[in-house]
Amino acid sequence: MSFSCGCCRILGPVLFEYDTPRIVSIKSRKVGLINRLVQLGILAYVIGWVFVWQKGYQQFDSVISSVATKVKGVAVTNTTDHGVKIWDVADYIIPPQEETSFFVMTNLIMTLNQQQGRCPEMPEDCPHCISDSNCTAGEQSPRSNGIQTGKCVPVNSSTAVHTCEVLAWCPLENDVDLSQRNIFNGSYLKQCVFNRTTDPDCPIFRLGDIVREAGEDFQEIAVEGGVMGIQIKWDCDLDQSVSKCVPQYTFRRLDNKDVQNTVAPGYNFRFAKYYKGPGEVESRTLIKAYGIRFDVMVFGKAGKFDIIPTMINIGSGLALLGVATVLCDVIVLHILKKKTFYREKKYKYVEDWYDLVGNSPACETP
Amino acid sequence: MSFSCGCCRILGPVLFEYDTPRIVSIKSRKVGLINRLVQLGILAYVIGWVFVWQKGYQQFDSVISSVATKVKGVAVTNTTDHGVKIWDVADYIIPPQEETSFFVMTNLIMTLNQQQGRCPEMPEDCPHCISDSNCTAGEQSPRSNGIQTGKCVPVNSSTAVHTCEVLAWCPLENDVDLSQRNIFNGSYLKQCVFNRTTDPDCPIFRLGDIVREAGEDFQEIAVEGGVMGIQIKWDCDLDQSVSKCVPQYTFRRLDNKDVQNTVAPGYNFRFAKYYKGPGEVESRTLIKAYGIRFDVMVFGKAGKFDIIPTMINIGSGLALLGVATVLCDVIVLHILKKKTFYREKKYKYVEDWYDLVGNSPACETP
Amino acid sequence: MSFSCGCCRILGPVLFEYDTPRIVSIKSRKVGLINRLVQLGILAYVIGWVFVWQKGYQQFDSVISSVATKVKGVAVTNTTDHGVKIWDVADYIIPPQEETSFFVMTNLIMTLNQQQGRCPEMPEDCPHCISDSNCTAGEQSPRSNGIQTGKCVPVNSSTAVHTCEVLAWCPLENDVDLSQRNIFNGSYLKQCVFNRTTDPDCPIFRLGDIVREAGEDFQEIAVEGGVMGIQIKWDCDLDQSVSKCVPQYTFRRLDNKDVQNTVAPGYNFRFAKYYKGPGEVESRTLIKAYGIRFDVMVFGKAGKFDIIPTMINIGSGLALLGVATVLCDVIVLHILKKKTFYREKKYKYVEDWYDLVGNSPACETP
Repeated sequence: MSFSCGCCRILGPVLFEYDTPRIVSIKSRKVGLINRLVQLGILAYVIGWVFVWQKGYQQFDSVISSVATKVKGVAVTNTTDHGVKIWDVADYIIPPQEETSFFVMTNLIMTLNQQQGRCPEMPEDCPHCISDSNCTAGEQSPRSNGIQTGKCVPVNSSTAVHTCEVLAWCPLENDVDLSQRNIFNGSYLKQCVFNRTTDPDCPIFRLGDIVREAGEDFQEIAVEGGVMGIQIKWDCDLDQSVSKCVPQYTFRRLDNKDVQNTVAPGYNFRFAKYYKGPGEVESRTLIKAYGIRFDVMVFGKAGKFDIIPTMINIGSGLALLGVATVLCDVIVLHILKKKTFYREKKYKYVEDWYDLVGNSPACETP
Repeated sequence: MSFSCGCCRILGPVLFEYDTPRIVSIKSRKVGLINRLVQLGILAYVIGWVFVWQKGYQQFDSVISSVATKVKGVAVTNTTDHGVKIWDVADYIIPPQEETSFFVMTNLIMTLNQQQGRCPEMPEDCPHCISDSNCTAGEQSPRSNGIQTGKCVPVNSSTAVHTCEVLAWCPLENDVDLSQRNIFNGSYLKQCVFNRTTDPDCPIFRLGDIVREAGEDFQEIAVEGGVMGIQIKWDCDLDQSVSKCVPQYTFRRLDNKDVQNTVAPGYNFRFAKYYKGPGEVESRTLIKAYGIRFDVMVFGKAGKFDIIPTMINIGSGLALLGVATVLCDVIVLHILKKKTFYREKKYKYVEDWYDLVGNSPACETP
Repeated sequence: MSFSCGCCRILGPVLFEYDTPRIVSIKSRKVGLINRLVQLGILAYVIGWVFVWQKGYQQFDSVISSVATKVKGVAVTNTTDHGVKIWDVADYIIPPQEETSFFVMTNLIMTLNQQQGRCPEMPEDCPHCISDSNCTAGEQSPRSNGIQTGKCVPVNSSTAVHTCEVLAWCPLENDVDLSQRNIFNGSYLKQCVFNRTTDPDCPIFRLGDIVREAGEDFQEIAVEGGVMGIQIKWDCDLDQSVSKCVPQYTFRRLDNKDVQNTVAPGYNFRFAKYYKGPGEVESRTLIKAYGIRFDVMVFGKAGKFDIIPTMINIGSGLALLGVATVLCDVIVLHILKKKTFYREKKYKYVEDWYDLVGNSPACETP
């Protein structure tokens, strides 16, 4: 005990001393049981819910995906305007390939042999006119199909109705004759076909089945068009075998079919096929394509064991265990009959009223 | 007290005893106030910031979205090359439909009646040649429009300049004649139109407004092309009414308009319309389309009450409360004048120097 | 000490008292060292791993991105069917522009001058027939190219094979003559070109390099088609300079090239070019395009200092420090020889067996 060193005086107590709190161990069935029950509840929450059920030991990452789609099938139409017509994939998939989506044309309005020129506006779209003074050259209204030339002309030879003449692709599209039919009846065949109950993992779908699964009517959606979501949920537990990591398919309609509350009900767009006739005159066939856009949406998350979420959950679980002590202290020190006795055992009172400048005792102590 | 059982000897102390730390209660205004202030700060942080402001009781999920767009409007151009031309949606939207994006052609270079054949390279793109020995059959340079045939031919009859002959779609595109004009002036009309101050929730936008909101000049971006982002932010608090969950629109230019620091300034691409003339000869009109690609980007997060983030935040908040005790212990035991007195009250020293093998006291204790 | 107030009686002890646990300080080298080592380990984990390495003080957000791509280059083919043909960007990129993806046609089957009409089914695709009774009018099988008319007709004049007649775009595509060649050899030139070792940041890629980096054979993937991923990883530390935030490029094949385990190997789709001949008869050239779809996938996360993850990590770190005390208590109170001595110092036993109704001691205490 006679030999000493400077650094030991500092490091000695730090390294070779162990501080542990002094404990009052109260032998009370009531408080003991309450304490253990609260601790048990917290442990059950941390182990059962956070770790086992919610996999709190895993770090989650989201899915990055790429989807390739292919549509097969032929449709036939028989209309008075265009006769019997065959529609195959090259006709009804527009554009021919997209990344995560494909559009199937199910209804259309064709306007054949349009050429750039001057023609009267559609009487359904625009206000009628009486003289040239009703039409302003260069004006363009949002519902119009072209730029006004300033002239007021008869719509056709058999009517007295006049509309403003426009510079446009003529003849204009006649939306009124829209025949409410669709070119598909929604049935395709392939060896394995998706079925919610018998083949839930088969990635080949009948268009009709997709629409039916979403609770929609194919005939209805095919006429006005719409947007269908093919949702692929891909939740994977990478701590387990990869073979258990299979996608789940669900379908829902994404567009608002409530005609009242939407800007443009259904789904349609216009495109044209361009031709060049004799004498280099360009003409085009304008097609207003109604159809179903299928959006493939892949989501999900992959979880893998990671030390950080594990430690965060263990750490905050340990801190929550302290709640049991706080609760039982309230019972022991404020509710039990022998609370004064316990308080004496737990607390040692040390007074230090005189650490303030001056000598002004604000409160009396019992 | 005479009856006993084996399992009780073990379980009894575990179940029916309650352990609580023994406390020194120091009556000191200074330390007491510091302790409460630190605790108050930590509580204010945990309750005010983490829970109320940052909604630490919620689990967040990201947004999965699908977007349908529709463009309307007609444009008219009057150029010396092509005369008066009308452009409608079928002409200037390429491809006619996309999933989360749409391209509006605002400027173009048309090369009419291209046919596959042999023609001299553009003198602007390629080095001139003097004899056939300057040209290598089969070679293709990155700026060239075709494959060299190995011949050196005059560019046209009125000039002495010779370039290498290439196998290509002839005549070649003449990029130099690019007329710096655009086919749009960026104004469309509809009943409700988006306006940052009066109609911030209307989902109908004027193209010109989108560009102006992003702080760009429409005339400029329309000539060279560009990529505009339509950002839809959709933050939802699912613990509240869904009707409060409305999207917010912002616009920004996504491409780098700094010509110096970008590989290809602006946004353009080439496509062709194919024709078949008499005698089954295929010709095409090549179109270099300049325009604005509008990318709709939906982001945001939805929050909902969840027990795990709540408990993690409560747990780590409780642990942080321990910081107050650590801080005040430092003050009481090392800074206050009566620190030795307090240390004696808090600590009970127990010596155990002799638990080591042998008897070698390394440090002296005071 | 004679003056008092009501509120002080309550607030006084709360505000002006400081409670700190009473500690037994055990001077034991063994336990002291174990305690400090466990604490050091936990501190090293929290500071070293959680904060320095995993940047636990940052809040992470995912990337929202927009990609613009441009393809350049000319290819030449020389086939017996179509002679020498030139392919430029307008020919082989279909559709001409997409948002985050582009498709390069590398192989194709052309079927010229299709017109709507009646023709016999391909004998390779469909079962042969002997009489009209084998064919059902209106039926359509999934491998068929049209709708059956109900007739059984000879395939061509030089063979005795009969197949069912179909209403379709005639002549039908003859997939069997597929010549296994590709129109590209995968080399393009530009000033800076991506190279894993010399130019890892250059955003200009040779198609052949992308495929080679992914460990695939360009000639093979070009014939049957495929989907390549261009993965752009963009991890940013926003607490540091933005100039350090550069994207990293990696490439991989996304489609399943295992012919056995995939529904449709390779990547191909059909599209058509429509022509109008004399007398307004519409014909089309059907193109089955094989090619490589390049999907640009941007991912990554941006981290920035945020108080909440910092505090969660500090809080659960502090709670974990309590583990050291628990561990050392086990050693001191249950393993060391002088455990009974230490237990007496740490614990003060208080009995409360008589708080139960009645007087039934369940367990005997030692």
